[in-house]
Amino acid sequence: MQTQGNNMDPWRGLYAARTAGLAASEVRALFAVASRPEVVSLAGGMPFVSALPKELLTAAVERTIHDRAAVALQYGSGQGMPKLREQILEVMALEGIHAGVDDLVVTTGSQHALELVAKLFLDPGDVVLAEGPSYVTAITVFKSFQAEVVHSPMDDQGLIPQGLRDTIARLRAEGRRMKFLYTIPSFQNPMGVTMPWERRMEILEIARQNEILVLEDNPYGLLYFDQAPPHAMRSVEEDGVIYLGTFSKTLAPGFRVGWAVAPHAIREKLILANEAAVLSPGTFAQTVVSEYLSTADWRGQIDTFRGVYRERRDALLGALAEQLPTLSWTVPNGGFYVWLTLPAHLDSKAMLPRAVKELVAYTPGTAFFADGTGRNAMRLSFCYPTPDFIREGVRRLATVINGELALLTEFAQTGPVSTLPSEPEGVLPPYAG
Amino acid sequence: MQTQGNNMDPWRGLYAARTAGLAASEVRALFAVASRPEVVSLAGGMPFVSALPKELLTAAVERTIHDRAAVALQYGSGQGMPKLREQILEVMALEGIHAGVDDLVVTTGSQHALELVAKLFLDPGDVVLAEGPSYVTAITVFKSFQAEVVHSPMDDQGLIPQGLRDTIARLRAEGRRMKFLYTIPSFQNPMGVTMPWERRMEILEIARQNEILVLEDNPYGLLYFDQAPPHAMRSVEEDGVIYLGTFSKTLAPGFRVGWAVAPHAIREKLILANEAAVLSPGTFAQTVVSEYLSTADWRGQIDTFRGVYRERRDALLGALAEQLPTLSWTVPNGGFYVWLTLPAHLDSKAMLPRAVKELVAYTPGTAFFADGTGRNAMRLSFCYPTPDFIREGVRRLATVINGELALLTEFAQTGPVSTLPSEPEGVLPPYAG
Repeated sequence: MQTQGNNMDPWRGLYAARTAGLAASEVRALFAVASRPEVVSLAGGMPFVSALPKELLTAAVERTIHDRAAVALQYGSGQGMPKLREQILEVMALEGIHAGVDDLVVTTGSQHALELVAKLFLDPGDVVLAEGPSYVTAITVFKSFQAEVVHSPMDDQGLIPQGLRDTIARLRAEGRRMKFLYTIPSFQNPMGVTMPWERRMEILEIARQNEILVLEDNPYGLLYFDQAPPHAMRSVEEDGVIYLGTFSKTLAPGFRVGWAVAPHAIREKLILANEAAVLSPGTFAQTVVSEYLSTADWRGQIDTFRGVYRERRDALLGALAEQLPTLSWTVPNGGFYVWLTLPAHLDSKAMLPRAVKELVAYTPGTAFFADGTGRNAMRLSFCYPTPDFIREGVRRLATVINGELALLTEFAQTGPVSTLPSEPEGVLPPYAG
Repeated sequence: MQTQGNNMDPWRGLYAARTAGLAASEVRALFAVASRPEVVSLAGGMPFVSALPKELLTAAVERTIHDRAAVALQYGSGQGMPKLREQILEVMALEGIHAGVDDLVVTTGSQHALELVAKLFLDPGDVVLAEGPSYVTAITVFKSFQAEVVHSPMDDQGLIPQGLRDTIARLRAEGRRMKFLYTIPSFQNPMGVTMPWERRMEILEIARQNEILVLEDNPYGLLYFDQAPPHAMRSVEEDGVIYLGTFSKTLAPGFRVGWAVAPHAIREKLILANEAAVLSPGTFAQTVVSEYLSTADWRGQIDTFRGVYRERRDALLGALAEQLPTLSWTVPNGGFYVWLTLPAHLDSKAMLPRAVKELVAYTPGTAFFADGTGRNAMRLSFCYPTPDFIREGVRRLATVINGELALLTEFAQTGPVSTLPSEPEGVLPPYAG
């Protein structure tokens, strides 16, 4: 029998087997560090909600209280409020998605849609295919249902079709049971890259041939900087795609209003799972969002967000070119993230305490892999700090990286580099056992 | 391999085994019926939110937008907002609970706390002990994690200690693995009964002796009509109780703000599970609730709710005494529900379509049992309709019940009563197979 919890926990023998997979993520610990005001945080994915004028929300909130209180304060439908679902159809139409109001389920952020889909589909030992690297808290959710996340390789145009074919073939040969492919086609978290249309079609075809569902997560698609990304995969494939959207990035995460669009039978099960988990998604928050969409120029506000994030992306890319010209990084055309690759022997996780000492934070690449890879990479978020802070953050980061490189060069003249202190053979370190 | 879903679902082979346990509840179907305005619904558990003056909320919402927008719109802590957690301590102190601000986790309604606790503790085949009858959507949640809900008998003072001892002994003899006892000690859903203090202590002692956690769900404790109920079980037992509270009944369910208080190690895991499921509970709703508690006379408002529900309880009990004097029912001193027992041969589930035809709805007793019992009982909710509608509803219900009883008497003179049409032996009905 597997036991969890520390020895001080009298209930450690009672936990479910799945609870062993529920560990604190590396990003979680960072939130505490990054919240110190003197640290420039390029770590979190917090949208810049201060760009949202209070007037736009005030009208929505006043109408919620004065005109719709009886509904906004009460329990609601486990599928979400009908009016809001109609408005979400308009939002999705901007990315080529045509669906009916019955096809979607409102969830407590799209995060909860991930949790519900995982609960519906994942048995212990199942495989979820995902981009490598992928969104950290999606990996956490899949692992919490005792699934294994297997990454498929990417390049600067996202998931590589032949790599996906090879990964699937290998897993099939091993007799593994694959349930779905989790993908963020536009402005991917954490790489910032976008799949071209042809590649999306090829990925869909591979999924169809292998009878694997596609779980398409699209939080950033509307936050493009120049040209809009290709239409969502869901725009051409209704039966094989579960599509996730959210207002967390185009409006504000504090409402926790996201949604899933799914094929009929799956969507009926999603509603039941949603009802079991929360009875109904928050009607107050749904009503405020619905009134915001009714009363405010939400398209104009998304344009404003685009401008804010474009300026910050430019600040980050410019600072990287100036401060760390020998390294390589992705060039995102939207979203929140740049993926920075370090020289092969640098370890972003080991380096993080030194970075925080220099008052800059980032997310180590290992956070975005289920298998421990990603040590020589990091995610830099440009969504939250102002351009000046971003530039200052990159200066500090360059100091840390250049210091590490100098150390590496020095050691390279004397012998192989190791990040572990050598232990005398036969003597166990104190933390062993 | 188990398959779920109908034959039209191309993905029916992909669902997790647990998804077979996720069925639509009887209460769910009733919501659609009960929402027709001509039906007097004694079925749902919707609080009467119209008793909440808009002015009380307006101040809270305005302060949220004007003074706290940067926090209210952003992602927050997976444990919930510190200020709100402090205020929840004041609410719980009214029921004798003393806890620290770190001991509790804010959840998306207490329903989501049920889901998270179930996820942390339940392996397939585990047993959850529960009152018989018990809260329908708790049963749904436990079953959705493939646990078996085993009911322990009740009387008009709640769970019977000796019955619980016997149930546990039987399950132990069968080698079953019991994880926790789910109980609603005050104004129980669906029976409306309340456990006296001595009995609470005896139940706690039984749980201790058997190393079973107690999951104490207390949505109604503050909504008493005369004297306050005994203090919560959590008031004297920190290590063995997970306590659930909510603002859904004392304020409004539309915010989806509830909480769990749990022993240290369990609470740490609850936070991780909460983060995986929703990243953070809704900060906007939490801020509005927190500002409401800061600015409004929330204790006075709970008094108002008490008066509203007391009047409705009186209307229901008076109408039952007048219209159905030969039946028996529970007499709740708080909360939302009366449990009505019918003569043994009446079937509340079979009778429901006839009741709806007479424009009255209730919840059949079978909804509150995992094992199909409860056919000759029903839950009557007095929380939502006005006293006049309650009286009219009971008049309609009496028409239906008296009609059934007359039919029963008539049939009793000619032979045994059967609700199934007789089938010629050897010929299968068309729906068989």
